[in-house]
Amino acid sequence: MPYVNIRITREGATSEQKAELIRGVTRLLQDTLGKNPETTVVVIDEVEMDCWGIGGMPVAEFRQRGS
Amino acid sequence: MPYVNIRITREGATSEQKAELIRGVTRLLQDTLGKNPETTVVVIDEVEMDCWGIGGMPVAEFRQRGS
Amino acid sequence: MPYVNIRITREGATSEQKAELIRGVTRLLQDTLGKNPETTVVVIDEVEMDCWGIGGMPVAEFRQRGS
Amino acid sequence: MPYVNIRITREGATSEQKAELIRGVTRLLQDTLGKNPETTVVVIDEVEMDCWGIGGMPVAEFRQRGS
Amino acid sequence: MPYVNIRITREGATSEQKAELIRGVTRLLQDTLGKNPETTVVVIDEVEMDCWGIGGMPVAEFRQRGS
Amino acid sequence: MPYVNIRITREGATSEQKAELIRGVTRLLQDTLGKNPETTVVVIDEVEMDCWGIGGMPVAEFRQRGS
Repeated sequence: MPYVNIRITREGATSEQKAELIRGVTRLLQDTLGKNPETTVVVIDEVEMDCWGIGGMPVAEFRQRGS
Repeated sequence: MPYVNIRITREGATSEQKAELIRGVTRLLQDTLGKNPETTVVVIDEVEMDCWGIGGMPVAEFRQRGS
Repeated sequence: MPYVNIRITREGATSEQKAELIRGVTRLLQDTLGKNPETTVVVIDEVEMDCWGIGGMPVAEFRQRGS
Repeated sequence: MPYVNIRITREGATSEQKAELIRGVTRLLQDTLGKNPETTVVVIDEVEMDCWGIGGMPVAEFRQRGS
Repeated sequence: MPYVNIRITREGATSEQKAELIRGVTRLLQDTLGKNPETTVVVIDEVEMDCWGIGGMPVAEFRQRGS
Repeated sequence: MPYVNIRITREGATSEQKAELIRGVTRLLQDTLGKNPETTVVVIDEVEMDCWGIGGMPVAEFRQRGS
């Protein structure tokens, strides 16, 4: 019965990759905690690059800095 | 003073339907817990179909399967 | 297939009141958007008073101010 | 190591303003709690106007009412 | 740089099981989308049973019903 | 009208520090985007140490590793 929210930057993840995330995390919860996959909900949010910050700056700038 | 986040798949909900959700859930919190409607915040997120998973698969596939 | 997160301050909501919220919001989504109640998930978060802010101050102070 | 989610209505915030929010909230967490800015994550969600409710109505209507 | 929020009912998950979830979902994001594990954040929320609803009722009641 | 959710590990933040976070982030949104402080909501979540992961491991282990 878990709810999982995966938030990533919007950088072209395909529907196949999203389906793989959904399948993988649902299986992980079943294997680790015995959670029922039938009622496991997974929601993926793709966030615009300029809306994601880390290290006190937008992620694009953070990556350029070489961190 | 509650905050309510309603997450649904993006399938053409109209502004009128969203207004109805906002009105309905605000009233529910007032009737059930006496919460002040003036400071009740409701945010609706519409999620792309391929970003929503249930039963270990994307929701479109889940529905076709007849569940 | 919606997911609803209701966040309120922790002030003694009973299990009966929570059940009423769950029932009410699930029905609202069914009546307004035709959402399947069987797969509607509702999660209620009770937040400590000193962790909830509005108007730039903790909610207890905000209420005393008479707003 | 904090995670901060800032949700605002979509009304034309620029990338510069978003960068200012990211910088400001990261610094605030460092100054107030000593949190490491390097691992502070900030995500800004811009929400469509008709998806944001307050006072039991969509925010556009709420503002017109003069509240 | 992803952020993952896993929400489960509070039913005695151990620290070892939580560590397994953290490890597993971080690896999944690396394998599927090439995400950097160093900056992947995972937060697990354990929710009280009477705060979790599915099928229009608290989860304990839902399970008894045999669904 | 913004909603801000600050998630930190539970490590003894005081009510005064939380009030400072609430005041600071509300002011930041007013200064940067002209947001009305009266309707800005801030919710702080304190998360148990073993429920927070980074770098594929619980945060306590991550810190010991010297990252």
